[in-house]
Amino acid sequence: MADFKVNILGCGSATPSLRHMPSCQVVDHRDRLMMVDCGEGAQLAMRRMRLKYSRLNHIFISHLHGDHCLGLPGLLSTMALHATEGSVTVHTFAEGAELFSRIIDFFCRERTYELKFNIIRPERAVIYEDKSLTVETFPLYHRVPCVGYIFREKPKLRHLNREMVDFYNVPIARRHAIKEGADFTLPDGTIVANHRLTTPAEPSLSYAYCSDTAYNPLVAEAVKGVDVIYHEATYAHDQEAKARPRGHSTAAEAARIALDAGAKKLIIGHYSKSYNDETMHLDDARSIFPQTIAANEGLTIDIS
Amino acid sequence: MADFKVNILGCGSATPSLRHMPSCQVVDHRDRLMMVDCGEGAQLAMRRMRLKYSRLNHIFISHLHGDHCLGLPGLLSTMALHATEGSVTVHTFAEGAELFSRIIDFFCRERTYELKFNIIRPERAVIYEDKSLTVETFPLYHRVPCVGYIFREKPKLRHLNREMVDFYNVPIARRHAIKEGADFTLPDGTIVANHRLTTPAEPSLSYAYCSDTAYNPLVAEAVKGVDVIYHEATYAHDQEAKARPRGHSTAAEAARIALDAGAKKLIIGHYSKSYNDETMHLDDARSIFPQTIAANEGLTIDIS
Repeated sequence: MADFKVNILGCGSATPSLRHMPSCQVVDHRDRLMMVDCGEGAQLAMRRMRLKYSRLNHIFISHLHGDHCLGLPGLLSTMALHATEGSVTVHTFAEGAELFSRIIDFFCRERTYELKFNIIRPERAVIYEDKSLTVETFPLYHRVPCVGYIFREKPKLRHLNREMVDFYNVPIARRHAIKEGADFTLPDGTIVANHRLTTPAEPSLSYAYCSDTAYNPLVAEAVKGVDVIYHEATYAHDQEAKARPRGHSTAAEAARIALDAGAKKLIIGHYSKSYNDETMHLDDARSIFPQTIAANEGLTIDIS
Repeated sequence: MADFKVNILGCGSATPSLRHMPSCQVVDHRDRLMMVDCGEGAQLAMRRMRLKYSRLNHIFISHLHGDHCLGLPGLLSTMALHATEGSVTVHTFAEGAELFSRIIDFFCRERTYELKFNIIRPERAVIYEDKSLTVETFPLYHRVPCVGYIFREKPKLRHLNREMVDFYNVPIARRHAIKEGADFTLPDGTIVANHRLTTPAEPSLSYAYCSDTAYNPLVAEAVKGVDVIYHEATYAHDQEAKARPRGHSTAAEAARIALDAGAKKLIIGHYSKSYNDETMHLDDARSIFPQTIAANEGLTIDIS
């Protein structure tokens, strides 16, 4: 499997139905799991998709509507019962941190891991970074403060050309710098350009999560150049009049964002429970942006 | 279907699994729904069992462990989205009322129904009464304050013997009192004994919910004479050493309670997730109390 993928645990809206669970995704980057939104039932959905609690250390909440975060107390309690170690950080707005820390302190006093809250704001900011990935927030346009998230791989290392490295006798200690793009200086002072010693790195990939939001061209600006975009598509064209007043988008609007952002792939979800299937959403979106796929519970999508 | 039945929405313990959901039942008495415990996923389980939100007005919480109440915020939010009317009363301990009212005020400010909390204590008391039913609490023996609930039908009306009523020319205004057991006085002062005018009422039935609790003979005392008992049976005999220290019971202990209480039927549940099926629980219980059935999600059990 790919190094970078997204698992759909829930892609319904507002209330769970027999077809779709509330919002929840798990981004898997090199076996490190990061959850985005945590609707009721998230802990069970993880189990269903065989995603290990022990590999989950970050949970990113987009906004404080129940269908995006009411799975947190149960998930965090169960993780303690499973003796998860290390730390778990919940990224959320200040009032969410206050409320959830109180709930979790009540129901799950004895934790096996350290629970941290990272306070986010509805603005563009890098809020997480490790050696291979950053996570950024950007504003969305919903009825309450809401952010999207961009998961962005850092530039990867170039590949050493083994023959040239041997030919120039590059010492091991220098090789990492060369993978990072440095030139190499021979004992006689001659400079060997990096491109003679290496082949290009794999492209750095990125994934953006945009839910919940009304259509806004600023979202396309914010996710410009991102490879794969998840964008909510609560309604198809038949109910488009409901979208804006409720702070939601249609499938066609989601497709417009993907097109304007220059994405390679669009995933739509957050379907209104008034639909019995997503045929109309898909038709609407693909007529504008053909590389659209419909999220569904249990689906895993490669970012690469 | 019967007038009085119990629907099993969840009968697992501690954490949901792919086999069992956390604790939740819905008692249906003459189409009036009363929920007992409300684990995560209760709202979806109601939908799965086609139980209407609009008929649910009382939720009884046994104790404040997450697997018995974390479904409340989602359920109460969804009921508001479904425009449930009237009132919904949550019966719980004081600190549960405080915490949940805060959570629900946050996630569900605009309610279509009136949300009430009725503060219970871990003691024997009638906490609910309508014209045909009472609900009583009684103490259970868990790691935190915990109560069981007895749903008890009030005495039912006797049936009028139509021929005798006509013969004695009993006026309509007197008939209800006669159904309740009154004698009838003829114009000449002669008293007609009630048993000449009526046939006996149907028996009044009762159901007791006992979860979570360590084995304690006082539970059998509390539910003495109850027709159908649900009693937790977290462990079978193979793990009986775990039961008492954790404030739980074995299937054999549940059966002992049913036997000592003189019950007609025992339902066991709250199974530890360490079991792949309930064969051992059932064998253990039936060797002591043969009329034992194993709870399972989706099961509806007649109380009559």
